[in-house]
Amino acid sequence: MNFRIDFEPIGRRVPYRDGASIFEVARDAGVGISSSCGGKGTCGKCRIRVLSGKVSPLTEKEKEKLRPEEIARGYRLACLTKAYEAIKVEIPSESLVVSQRLQLIGKDRKVIVDPIVKACNVTLSPPSMTDIRSDQVRLLDHLAENYRLKHIHIDFPVQRQLPGLLRANELKVKLGLRGKEVVMAGSLGERLLGLAVDIGTTKIAAYLNDLETGEVLVAKGVMNSEITYGEDVMSRITYVMENKNGGEILRQTVTQDLNQLVNKLCGEAGCASDNIVEAVIVGNTAMHHLFLGLPVKQLALAPYVPAVSSSVDIKARDLGLAIAPGAYIHLLPNIAGFVGADHVAVLLATGLYDTEKTVLCLDVGTNTEITLAAHDSLWSCSCASGPAFEGAHIKDGMRATGGAIEKIKITGSLVEFKTINDDSPVGLCGSGVLDAIAQLREAGIIDQMGKMQAYSHVRSDKNGREFILVPKGKSGSGKDITLTEKDISEIQLAKGAIFTGMSILLGEANINWEEIDEVIIAGAFGSYIDVASAIRIGMFPPLPMERFMQVGNAAGVGARLALISKKQRELAGDIARKVNYVELTNYPRYPHMFALSLRFPSAESFGTAPSHDRS
Amino acid sequence: MNFRIDFEPIGRRVPYRDGASIFEVARDAGVGISSSCGGKGTCGKCRIRVLSGKVSPLTEKEKEKLRPEEIARGYRLACLTKAYEAIKVEIPSESLVVSQRLQLIGKDRKVIVDPIVKACNVTLSPPSMTDIRSDQVRLLDHLAENYRLKHIHIDFPVQRQLPGLLRANELKVKLGLRGKEVVMAGSLGERLLGLAVDIGTTKIAAYLNDLETGEVLVAKGVMNSEITYGEDVMSRITYVMENKNGGEILRQTVTQDLNQLVNKLCGEAGCASDNIVEAVIVGNTAMHHLFLGLPVKQLALAPYVPAVSSSVDIKARDLGLAIAPGAYIHLLPNIAGFVGADHVAVLLATGLYDTEKTVLCLDVGTNTEITLAAHDSLWSCSCASGPAFEGAHIKDGMRATGGAIEKIKITGSLVEFKTINDDSPVGLCGSGVLDAIAQLREAGIIDQMGKMQAYSHVRSDKNGREFILVPKGKSGSGKDITLTEKDISEIQLAKGAIFTGMSILLGEANINWEEIDEVIIAGAFGSYIDVASAIRIGMFPPLPMERFMQVGNAAGVGARLALISKKQRELAGDIARKVNYVELTNYPRYPHMFALSLRFPSAESFGTAPSHDRS
Repeated sequence: MNFRIDFEPIGRRVPYRDGASIFEVARDAGVGISSSCGGKGTCGKCRIRVLSGKVSPLTEKEKEKLRPEEIARGYRLACLTKAYEAIKVEIPSESLVVSQRLQLIGKDRKVIVDPIVKACNVTLSPPSMTDIRSDQVRLLDHLAENYRLKHIHIDFPVQRQLPGLLRANELKVKLGLRGKEVVMAGSLGERLLGLAVDIGTTKIAAYLNDLETGEVLVAKGVMNSEITYGEDVMSRITYVMENKNGGEILRQTVTQDLNQLVNKLCGEAGCASDNIVEAVIVGNTAMHHLFLGLPVKQLALAPYVPAVSSSVDIKARDLGLAIAPGAYIHLLPNIAGFVGADHVAVLLATGLYDTEKTVLCLDVGTNTEITLAAHDSLWSCSCASGPAFEGAHIKDGMRATGGAIEKIKITGSLVEFKTINDDSPVGLCGSGVLDAIAQLREAGIIDQMGKMQAYSHVRSDKNGREFILVPKGKSGSGKDITLTEKDISEIQLAKGAIFTGMSILLGEANINWEEIDEVIIAGAFGSYIDVASAIRIGMFPPLPMERFMQVGNAAGVGARLALISKKQRELAGDIARKVNYVELTNYPRYPHMFALSLRFPSAESFGTAPSHDRS
Repeated sequence: MNFRIDFEPIGRRVPYRDGASIFEVARDAGVGISSSCGGKGTCGKCRIRVLSGKVSPLTEKEKEKLRPEEIARGYRLACLTKAYEAIKVEIPSESLVVSQRLQLIGKDRKVIVDPIVKACNVTLSPPSMTDIRSDQVRLLDHLAENYRLKHIHIDFPVQRQLPGLLRANELKVKLGLRGKEVVMAGSLGERLLGLAVDIGTTKIAAYLNDLETGEVLVAKGVMNSEITYGEDVMSRITYVMENKNGGEILRQTVTQDLNQLVNKLCGEAGCASDNIVEAVIVGNTAMHHLFLGLPVKQLALAPYVPAVSSSVDIKARDLGLAIAPGAYIHLLPNIAGFVGADHVAVLLATGLYDTEKTVLCLDVGTNTEITLAAHDSLWSCSCASGPAFEGAHIKDGMRATGGAIEKIKITGSLVEFKTINDDSPVGLCGSGVLDAIAQLREAGIIDQMGKMQAYSHVRSDKNGREFILVPKGKSGSGKDITLTEKDISEIQLAKGAIFTGMSILLGEANINWEEIDEVIIAGAFGSYIDVASAIRIGMFPPLPMERFMQVGNAAGVGARLALISKKQRELAGDIARKVNYVELTNYPRYPHMFALSLRFPSAESFGTAPSHDRS
């Protein structure tokens, strides 16, 4: 059988391998379909929809995992389905691994694949007693004569390889050429690969790309092990300040994470890490500095200046990253101590730098970076939104993993909810907290100041009131799952910080809320927020829903763009220079505005843009 | 007391430190006076001559170590002499450490000190809430504004240091700037140092220089520990070919030697290795390749091509050399598989590249590199002269250390000799062997073919005849020290190879022996040869003695020139390109010429130039 599987909406056509499941075919081709069981039919995550063509019959397992209406619409589990002829399948957004998500929201940036490292195949003439040029000069002469490439530098690990490689391959080699430098040499069949990484404070997302086609081969995410030295940026900086070699310990920790990721990515793609000839890495300024082994103390002290803000090109070997020894790591520029390379990547991925629209872009996290694009200018700031969105400092808060309530609806005394993986509820993740507050606020159970009213599900103790969302009998933990007044207060601080930041940027640009054409919500957390809830609690402005876009890990996409396109990489530098950084603490009226922003919008103000203070 | 000591002929004036010996003053100022006892008055090597001024009275120890005629001429031991007023002393050539030797033979090349790394002191403006530029951008802006230095790159180890350094030094730093790259940052008082190294197959010579003044602070030599893996180049290449990781083992071995040398040099100079911001390294092609970790197999197989021949700039950290982490190592270019960077350094040091004279330059060793400068051109070749000059393959041969007979005179049955350190004789070093053969040849005891005649000191056994130089009763080893016919044959092969090489170069240039204005003998061994003896055995042409110059470690001097002068470094590249490399084995008549050259010159031909074959 010799036919292909057409994966939509990503537009990949992949040859079918006889007897393989669609999941296996997709995985082998680097099409990322979600799975946590690795293709055993138990997790139910690899849902796809067969659009056309004949496939193997529905299995019993699938009947368990899929709802009847899904089955009726052609849904299958990719790991339990084989193709009988050329088929077309749709990978629904929830089944695509993060790397592909951006392609679904209408923001996919088609770029011409033009990476900084390019392949060049050469065949040299053999040395002889009358032509004793060194291997080095022989190669350089060949490049000059055949490609008009002059003043080329061969990096020394390549110099070490060349004599053996040339003699083992009849003087034929494939070079990885980065501008004037040869950074890799291999046999003709080898691929040139690239690595794009977003080092988040909590998670690291990495993408292995074929540099010649620009394709993502495999994408993977892992936790950032630095987390054991501090949950958030500030606690890690404190760790470094208080521990001799603390910086080096954190540097090695994250480097080890990356090396393990590289191993996994290459294992899955069936290629050698020595073929990764370029890496692009983004992260917030602290993650950027910790990865490079730069001092971070000054990031924690006013005026919070980075050690390094321009883009960095550094040999992978200098940092102990186990990719091609001649490879460079490129780090996108930082804007300020708390607006880092990851936000530059977001601005690159979202095309904010040259939009004609008026756009607000938020990367919501422990620190929320906000950029306003208006009048062909960019203004950026950073708000200390705290870890409440990640479930921290919330009594029954938790990370967005199995059993976390991610959606909630309160109608009278009926509390309906959805947990991640549909496991028994054990707590609330950020989006669940937002939903709960929005629902309670709408029901009038919470007032504008965040105070809880007496109500059937509300009880109180010495710490104040709390609303029982899930009674212990129904919870997976055996304890009541509640939302406390203190939880509400944490969210007020977070949403107030974000709203104040947006307001100040609008003031800088002399823009009204109504003028905003688009609000882009980036970041993992931002993808899970219910925008309506966020509007209801006054975290986002009350604009029509269609103006909001949740784009997922735009930082990772930005890193990939800078990996596969020199032009995009240059644009990142332009963006960093173009941004007007706004230091919120420089605003005399900031405390006043922040205090005001803690309130929830009044019921009658829903749907109208809140006023903001331009002073 | 506040006066100076004037050291001649090197022209250094150094402040006198009350109570110090002249040796101590010299050492502290980096004036290299020989000493193997470290200034205890026991080795007698630190002979100086007081030319003017009052000094402390002669000690008993000096009366032992100095001959009466020396004392009469003002000779003293520097370590036992103190100054009472401003004095002028001469450091005789034999007392100067190797680094200074070249300055004595009329070949000292006065160069303008213009190293590739230059100091630049900066004072930055402090960051503030309204000026949050990163430390990096703040420095780059300052360099652009104050020095018109644009597109500067700050190497990452410097980036790591800068934030702490700036804040600890009130924003004042001293930079080491290498072209467009900042390779070092330190406090204002720190020195910029440079390292020049000649990695010989047997010995490593290293020189620590002040890059701002160009002065040599300390010079040191150690054995090359690679020797435990093979005495000569070929046996080391064989080791690498036969042992997995053999190349890496040798690389690490020599790197460790260098790191220990750096430690010693810095210890004596009282400075930090982190202040060494540039190193220039030379060596023969094999030593060059082994140091860089380049493959060497192809050096041992026809057509003997180097992996790398152009000059190399490589970060010290890439090779594990423990100097400033941002420092570069520069390796001069190689000419061919057996004419390496060390010979380029010799050509640089001797100024051969732009002489108007006709000059032969030989670096005598296991491989003897020969260059002929004539008609504004350069021809070079390499002869496999073997290890006989180093005492190997000679029955009672030994290295030039204590107890080795270095000079010998045979008058009738009287054998007079001089050993190194005047120790009891235990063997012959290379110069002693040459002397012995020349004397025996002159006495008619050896014929033109190297055959020994019956004579009072000659005895024979089944291996042939041998001449008893020192009977066992007088030798330090308790055994007869003899010269065998086989020893003579080894020297015939060596001198024949050298003579044939010279002849072929002369043929290439269409030059007669009489036209040669100068013969420069470089290398440690070349310094100890008795030129008259070498002429007598037909190793050197019978030119007037004043045309010969023994210049010591010219390779080390060349390395130093390339260290302290950008122009000299460029010249080294020009030299390598200018040289016409002559591969002797390409000569059909080479075997014939070589066979003829094995003969010793006939008595009547002494003093006339031997004919050579131009075919």
